[in-house]
Amino acid sequence: MQAKPRTFQVDLDGRSYPIVIGRGLLGGDFDLSGHLIGLDCLVVSNETVATLYLDALKKNLTNSTVHLMNLGDGEAVKTLASVEAVIDKLVRSHAHRDTTVIALGGGVVGDITGFAAACYMRGVAFIQVPTTLLAQVDSSVGGKTGVNHPGGKNLIGAFHQPQLVLIDTDTLATLPDRELKAGLAEVIKYGLISDAEFFVWLETNMDALLGRDADALAHAIQRSCEIKAAVVSEDEKEKGKRALLNFGHTFAHAIENCLGYGEWLHGEAVAVGMVMAAGLSDINQAERDRITAVIASAGLPVAPPEIDGEKLMAAMETDKKVQAKRLRFVLLHSIGDAYLTGKFSEARLNEVLGRGDGRA
Amino acid sequence: MQAKPRTFQVDLDGRSYPIVIGRGLLGGDFDLSGHLIGLDCLVVSNETVATLYLDALKKNLTNSTVHLMNLGDGEAVKTLASVEAVIDKLVRSHAHRDTTVIALGGGVVGDITGFAAACYMRGVAFIQVPTTLLAQVDSSVGGKTGVNHPGGKNLIGAFHQPQLVLIDTDTLATLPDRELKAGLAEVIKYGLISDAEFFVWLETNMDALLGRDADALAHAIQRSCEIKAAVVSEDEKEKGKRALLNFGHTFAHAIENCLGYGEWLHGEAVAVGMVMAAGLSDINQAERDRITAVIASAGLPVAPPEIDGEKLMAAMETDKKVQAKRLRFVLLHSIGDAYLTGKFSEARLNEVLGRGDGRA
Repeated sequence: MQAKPRTFQVDLDGRSYPIVIGRGLLGGDFDLSGHLIGLDCLVVSNETVATLYLDALKKNLTNSTVHLMNLGDGEAVKTLASVEAVIDKLVRSHAHRDTTVIALGGGVVGDITGFAAACYMRGVAFIQVPTTLLAQVDSSVGGKTGVNHPGGKNLIGAFHQPQLVLIDTDTLATLPDRELKAGLAEVIKYGLISDAEFFVWLETNMDALLGRDADALAHAIQRSCEIKAAVVSEDEKEKGKRALLNFGHTFAHAIENCLGYGEWLHGEAVAVGMVMAAGLSDINQAERDRITAVIASAGLPVAPPEIDGEKLMAAMETDKKVQAKRLRFVLLHSIGDAYLTGKFSEARLNEVLGRGDGRA
Repeated sequence: MQAKPRTFQVDLDGRSYPIVIGRGLLGGDFDLSGHLIGLDCLVVSNETVATLYLDALKKNLTNSTVHLMNLGDGEAVKTLASVEAVIDKLVRSHAHRDTTVIALGGGVVGDITGFAAACYMRGVAFIQVPTTLLAQVDSSVGGKTGVNHPGGKNLIGAFHQPQLVLIDTDTLATLPDRELKAGLAEVIKYGLISDAEFFVWLETNMDALLGRDADALAHAIQRSCEIKAAVVSEDEKEKGKRALLNFGHTFAHAIENCLGYGEWLHGEAVAVGMVMAAGLSDINQAERDRITAVIASAGLPVAPPEIDGEKLMAAMETDKKVQAKRLRFVLLHSIGDAYLTGKFSEARLNEVLGRGDGRA
């Protein structure tokens, strides 16, 4: 017998929404039509995911008029042109204010689709159906949508909360190993920033996760979503606590920016970024070693690619976490306890970046 | 002696902001720098307006780093490409989250600039410095930003409230007559939807307004902004009452869509749209005549251009005010009392559109 789906709420004043996590939800008896605002919806996906899951999703939408479109694949399609393509499709479908846009796919599909939904008629409803681990534990929850600019990642976007996040963990069965591992980087992040106990659980259960054990994955996804939902409820627009979710990300974005988006997966860059952020943190070496070890045990990189330290530094200066021209980082007091700060050791930063004398 | 500027607040939960109306504010001692979030700002304008008012505006920004860019002119530049151009400029200026974007110009500049500010890093601060009557009484207040799509007007946008709206009524001295009149269409609208007394004031003071009497203009602008601010405070995201601000606009958008944007000024289309909406309303002929008369006395058109009624009807179907595929209109119970409804006489609509047998 299938376990009952786990449902919990993201609490946002007036715009709270449920996250539903379970097996066999797509194509099963979950009534997605009941969550639409009107009768029409547009499902945005890509060819790979649509081939696998679109027919199943349509069974959850029996009472609705379903329009469809596919985007291209990969971080390179996260452009304003793709947003325009989704909006063109909405116009051609005569979509009105009561339409619902459904993102079926990974983070790229969700980010583009959510931003298009945010802009179309100044905001129509949308639903996230994430099919990658990264999207399930991170990008589909919290309402951040947007696309890249040649000058930086996610520079163009909106806060636009979904009506519902529907996570069918069975979709992970078809996820390539490399993407599963990339998703685990964000899972590890949640332990590091706010739950030492969950971090210990990850240290002991990494093999089960890599082996795609359904219960282990469901637990990791639920705990990740709970932590993210709690942070987002407290600070939707990233005025404070939400910045903690960017642990490792200032470095990661700089790496992605220097390599060109798409060379490394986002989660891979985050993995290295977390090792670098741990290196910049004033924690003891034993904790740094545990962090490196758990990231390595997930099959993720722990050292940056060959990039000149000066180039990485320049990329970080452009990063949107920079405020009033001063670099800020999320650092650790200890495993499970992160904080945002503009105070850090320049020497240690140079060392982490392999810059100048720092490279001993 | 210059009269003291009039200041009042748009009340929005947590994001209230002031509207300041007065003479000689640009280049005067109004400290705009004090209203910026950080030290940097980007002023977006167009060549015509910048030539007239940019030097003056810079005097209000003495303690800030001022970046500049000009957009093209007219409704035709209200495209996603223009938004992208503003964002490109922000990236090139290394604008961070604490930057403030200032729109100096008419509604087109304000709508594009506000939307770019809404999207850049998921939202940076912006200030409206409207220099046309239309922008001063309508588009600069209320937080609606956005651009056109070939399929319809303002189909792509965001709600993004300014930090401040700064209205220097002296800028109206250089406004072409045709644009002054177009702005008066929206002023008349405020009387029609919610203030019969203000409508009477307009009936008796139209000559003074057309003669650019400073006191008359200041009163008309203030009353218009107050009415709009009250409506927006009550219903920021247009779930109900805010729709009343669209009186005449369903027809107007259809006219603009059929003619191609830019052929008629928005206010001219709204003027005719209001006559058509009055025609569709269940009011007596004397009231309809007063409405037509005041619009005509402002030098505005009161009859639609030569457009096939079927084409107008099709354009309205695409209009974003359509909900669940049913046309809705803002109609009048009487002058000063508007309501939103899906119930209207088909025969009268055909008559208003000059469609079929309706054209007697």
